Amino acid sequence: MFRPQIKVIDCTVRDGGLMNKWQFDNKFVRHVYHALAEAGVDYMEIGYLSSECAFNRKEYGAWRFCAEADLQKIIGDSEKKIKFSAMADIGRINYEDIPLRSESSLDMVRVACYVHQIDAAVALAEHCMDKGYETTINLMAVSTVGIRDLNEALEDLAKSRVPIIYLVDSFGAFYSEDIDTLAAKYFERLPDKIIGVHCHNNQQLAFANTIAAIINGVNYLDATLYGIGRGAGNCPLELLLSFLKNPKFKVRPLIKCIEEEIFPWAKKIDWGYSVPYMTSGVLNQHPRTAMAHMESENKDKITDFFDSMVNSTDSL
Amino acid sequence: MFRPQIKVIDCTVRDGGLMNKWQFDNKFVRHVYHALAEAGVDYMEIGYLSSECAFNRKEYGAWRFCAEADLQKIIGDSEKKIKFSAMADIGRINYEDIPLRSESSLDMVRVACYVHQIDAAVALAEHCMDKGYETTINLMAVSTVGIRDLNEALEDLAKSRVPIIYLVDSFGAFYSEDIDTLAAKYFERLPDKIIGVHCHNNQQLAFANTIAAIINGVNYLDATLYGIGRGAGNCPLELLLSFLKNPKFKVRPLIKCIEEEIFPWAKKIDWGYSVPYMTSGVLNQHPRTAMAHMESENKDKITDFFDSMVNSTDSL
Repeated sequence: MFRPQIKVIDCTVRDGGLMNKWQFDNKFVRHVYHALAEAGVDYMEIGYLSSECAFNRKEYGAWRFCAEADLQKIIGDSEKKIKFSAMADIGRINYEDIPLRSESSLDMVRVACYVHQIDAAVALAEHCMDKGYETTINLMAVSTVGIRDLNEALEDLAKSRVPIIYLVDSFGAFYSEDIDTLAAKYFERLPDKIIGVHCHNNQQLAFANTIAAIINGVNYLDATLYGIGRGAGNCPLELLLSFLKNPKFKVRPLIKCIEEEIFPWAKKIDWGYSVPYMTSGVLNQHPRTAMAHMESENKDKITDFFDSMVNSTDSL
Repeated sequence: MFRPQIKVIDCTVRDGGLMNKWQFDNKFVRHVYHALAEAGVDYMEIGYLSSECAFNRKEYGAWRFCAEADLQKIIGDSEKKIKFSAMADIGRINYEDIPLRSESSLDMVRVACYVHQIDAAVALAEHCMDKGYETTINLMAVSTVGIRDLNEALEDLAKSRVPIIYLVDSFGAFYSEDIDTLAAKYFERLPDKIIGVHCHNNQQLAFANTIAAIINGVNYLDATLYGIGRGAGNCPLELLLSFLKNPKFKVRPLIKCIEEEIFPWAKKIDWGYSVPYMTSGVLNQHPRTAMAHMESENKDKITDFFDSMVNSTDSL
């Protein structure tokens, strides 16, 4: 019962890089690349597309920029085995720094935006389309957007040429019923678009909410190896492929890559379920305060963190 | 929109004890007891009810037995603040070793059984009812039971006097759609019973599947602090109470207890999501092989484990 329209997008390097400023070495990225290709994953989101002036290369690794020379180091001499995607943030990439697709190894550009940036996002995404790329708009933090603003944003997106629109649970605040409600709204307001989903795992619901999205007809699915990603992390790719049970997907290459490449990082950076991330998810807050807490010496002082979050948001 | 019929059963000591042979000291159990009472949790499942001859006290801690003298040490001199439950396994408790409820601090006995033990389970549970206890039957490993056997088991349960029947995902193999299907079947075949749910977290779905059960009308909900429990663990209680949002529930006492009592155990025993538990869950296998792997020196050799499981079950 696999839907052939389903596409799986691995965000290991892009979303995982939010935890280490993209300090993955080429061996890591190459192994992920080969593992994803062997596993039958449709897209590898290899990083962010940023102008060189937006970030300092002394502080940020190659995948904050996705320069063609760096992409070539991953592909090597053989033919590229999987489609590459890069995410673009509004204001961090100048139009003139985006190469033509014909001159780039990137296949897709996904524009991430908040609701007040919809116009800028549509302009940037359509510019990328004109340069030959597949494009999506990923409307972030929908859990904080009021119904009138959301309706207006979806109306603008419906009028755009951008073919794929993402439902993004940036704060890990959604239950499956929220996914049901929002997916229905997206399909109603965006009848000609493909819908994607990107979930975070603050409440251990990233995989479950991705399944809920699939049941609702969502066809572009984001995941990462072992759930690596900002804060509580993402939908684990190994779980998603096991669920999809399409013969084109192989789980074993992912397991091997987790063992060899992700485990060493799991000892150095701290993603995944924890009480601070659960607290920010339940309270529908940006994970930045929880991330700062998890990076502090007091990371085990979860009651203090809980109290400060509850007091500052006046709930729970 | 909280359903007043919902009852939350904490299994921290009982299911967590499967990972350390119930070697929790009285300070631990007392803190859990006070925290659950303060949080408004309905039942504390404090251990297993076993005959002294079934296990050796040199190897197993007090909560493998739930003797009245040990219960009294937890309650102390004040009035008992929360209902106590104990689980009984077929063959490990002699009828004559079960005290009358009037002479015990236990309020509920939950009889765990496999499908071939239904008759024995009904007899034991009805015996406990006759001694004054609230009782449930928890039919384990339903993910491995064929449809004819399950129908027959439910028919036997429907005829029994036991008022509460549990849907148990022992192997963490279920997706929410399985919960939907099985809950519907349980309600259809057991029209006069209350239905409960007990989930394991092999696929990070214990909380999501508990929510699915709630949506389907299931009213007895099992969870544990920080998900502590056998293998991949259980539905995290702090997530469940946050979801239920009933003003009678307080999350903070749970967070404090996790910080002070569960974190030290998290450094000593290894529960929670991992690739071996995910693999046994996806393959619908008992977690014992995965548990042995996780306790071995080779716990990080997940590709070897994956290969051996796939070869022995001939799938994935």
